[in-house]
Order: sequence, then structure tokens, then C-alpha cells
Amino acid sequence: METINSEIFTLMYGSIVRQLITDLEDIGEVNKQLDTMGYNIGVRLIDEFLAKSRTAACTDFRDSAEKVAKVGFRMFLNTTANVTNWNPENTECSLVLEDNPLTDFVELPEGCSKLKYCNVLCGVIRGALEMVNLQVECDFVKDTLRGDELNEIRLKLVSEGTEAYPFKDDD
Amino acid sequence: METINSEIFTLMYGSIVRQLITDLEDIGEVNKQLDTMGYNIGVRLIDEFLAKSRTAACTDFRDSAEKVAKVGFRMFLNTTANVTNWNPENTECSLVLEDNPLTDFVELPEGCSKLKYCNVLCGVIRGALEMVNLQVECDFVKDTLRGDELNEIRLKLVSEGTEAYPFKDDD
Repeated sequence: METINSEIFTLMYGSIVRQLITDLEDIGEVNKQLDTMGYNIGVRLIDEFLAKSRTAACTDFRDSAEKVAKVGFRMFLNTTANVTNWNPENTECSLVLEDNPLTDFVELPEGCSKLKYCNVLCGVIRGALEMVNLQVECDFVKDTLRGDELNEIRLKLVSEGTEAYPFKDDD
Repeated sequence: METINSEIFTLMYGSIVRQLITDLEDIGEVNKQLDTMGYNIGVRLIDEFLAKSRTAACTDFRDSAEKVAKVGFRMFLNTTANVTNWNPENTECSLVLEDNPLTDFVELPEGCSKLKYCNVLCGVIRGALEMVNLQVECDFVKDTLRGDELNEIRLKLVSEGTEAYPFKDDD
């Protein structure tokens, strides 16, 4: 697998966020734009994931969330997440990031307390899961940059396509 | 050295460029902005370079250009460049990239023939070299995305600080 130095990635991401804050002048819009950028990345990144991870087809949402956390985060960000706080229906859970390479050395500037700095990750997860027929909502609910003790992404299954990956035609 | 998957980097970079084109609506401004973003990255990335490469102090501009091409590109983009086309005064040269992870699967959209898609690299080089007292101009003169047969960055020494890295105080 091709890799590059994570520091240039972290700095590049920081410069995107800074640019968006300057251009959009509204933190809510910045959060939305980061999510959209992530979505566009996710719908393409899923191909790499499916090709390289050689993971078995996910059996259900619970299994999919585990694969995102353990295989996806490892493959793309060289970290992993723990899946916790399932609701009784198994349609909502939290991904708690062990480490977050996007935020190394990052401090939020004044006036950015509502910034969801890593919202791109929510978009990536949403876009990637949509490609395997899982519609999800994804929100960065706890953030060490905003003073929380951990980084937590809340993942909620909205609907599930009837056909799950791998599609029959692919067999 | 911490690394991450290069595909997420490539896609992330693509989404920055797309965002800038949408927001700025002027290709010249996009080129300028990419260079500025790169500059801000370069002035920070040099620390990582000096800390991790454990390279000997550069003796002159010629040596510096070689280190950028061979050590810097390897460290941060997992590729290298060849240094060619020196002028007789040894103040100008070209970096010809062997491979360019920023442009994997990229095609320029219509109306973007003047876009210097990888201009961020020029900014990074300019910013990093400024931190070691070398003022340079840097231009992406040939680009496979625009139909050229190779990727060439032209590097021109503008002025050289009297004190070269490592500074005496650091010894």
C-alpha cells in the first residue's frame, strides 16, 4: 500500500480548514463544507477499501461499524477506533478514536469553539457507507480540540438498502 | 516515521483544489492560493525534515536542491525528483518529478488549462527553503496534467542569507 508522511497530511488538512474559515466566514458553513468534502472523498475511498482490505462482506450494521473502526481507520489514518455505546436496537453507536492524526499540534483559534475541525471524517464515513447501501448520519460529538476528554463520532443508521455488498452481479 | 495511506491524501488534495476553484472563480487566484497554502506548510514542515532526515548541513544551493529532490520528496511524498538543467551560475535548476502522488487519477476539468494543480508543492519548497535562509522562486513549468511529457518545477535562487543552517546558536 502506498503511504506518505502523515505530517504533510496534517498540515495540508489544517490549511484547508483555515482557508474555509477565511472564505466562508461562518463556522456552521465550514462544518457543512468539511462534511461535503469528506463525503466526496468517502464515495471514492470505498473502492480502495474493498480492493485492499480483502475483508469479508459485512453481515449487518454492527459488523460494518466494527470494520470502519478497526480496518478503515487503520488503513487510511493509521489509527483505530473503539465501537461503544450501542443503542438497544443496534442502529446507533459511537466510534471513539484512539488517536487522531488530523489534530496533531492543532489548536483552535479564538472564536472557533463551534468548529467541528475533523468533520471531514464524518463525511468520509457517510460517503463510504452509502456506497455499500447503508445510509447513515454521522456527527462529531466529542472533540479533544474543544476540551472533551476524547474524540467521539456518533453513527446512526438511517436506512439499509435491500441489497448488501458484494452485490450479486459482482460475484 | 508516521505514515498514512496516500490515496486519502490525494483525494483530500483534490477536494481542496475543487473547493478553491468554486470559491475563488479565478484560476490565477487559485494558483496563488495553492502556493500560499504550500508556503505555510513548508515553513512548518522544515522542522520535521531537519529533525528526521539527520542530513548534514547543506553546503550551497546546489546541495540544497539535491536534498529537496532526493530526501525531501522521499520523506514527504514517497517519491523522488531529478535535479537537471542547471544554469552556468548554479542559481537555477529544474526538479523533474519521477512520480507525483498528488495527481493519481486526476483529470483537469474543462476551462482549467491554466490551473497549476500542484502549485502547493512550489509553495512548500519556497517556505521550507526560506526557513534555512534561501530565498527562492519556484514555478511549476511542465505538468503532465496539462499535456506535458513530464512534471518539472523550476527553482531559482533569489538571495542567500549570510548565516546558513545549522545556525551557530544551535550547535
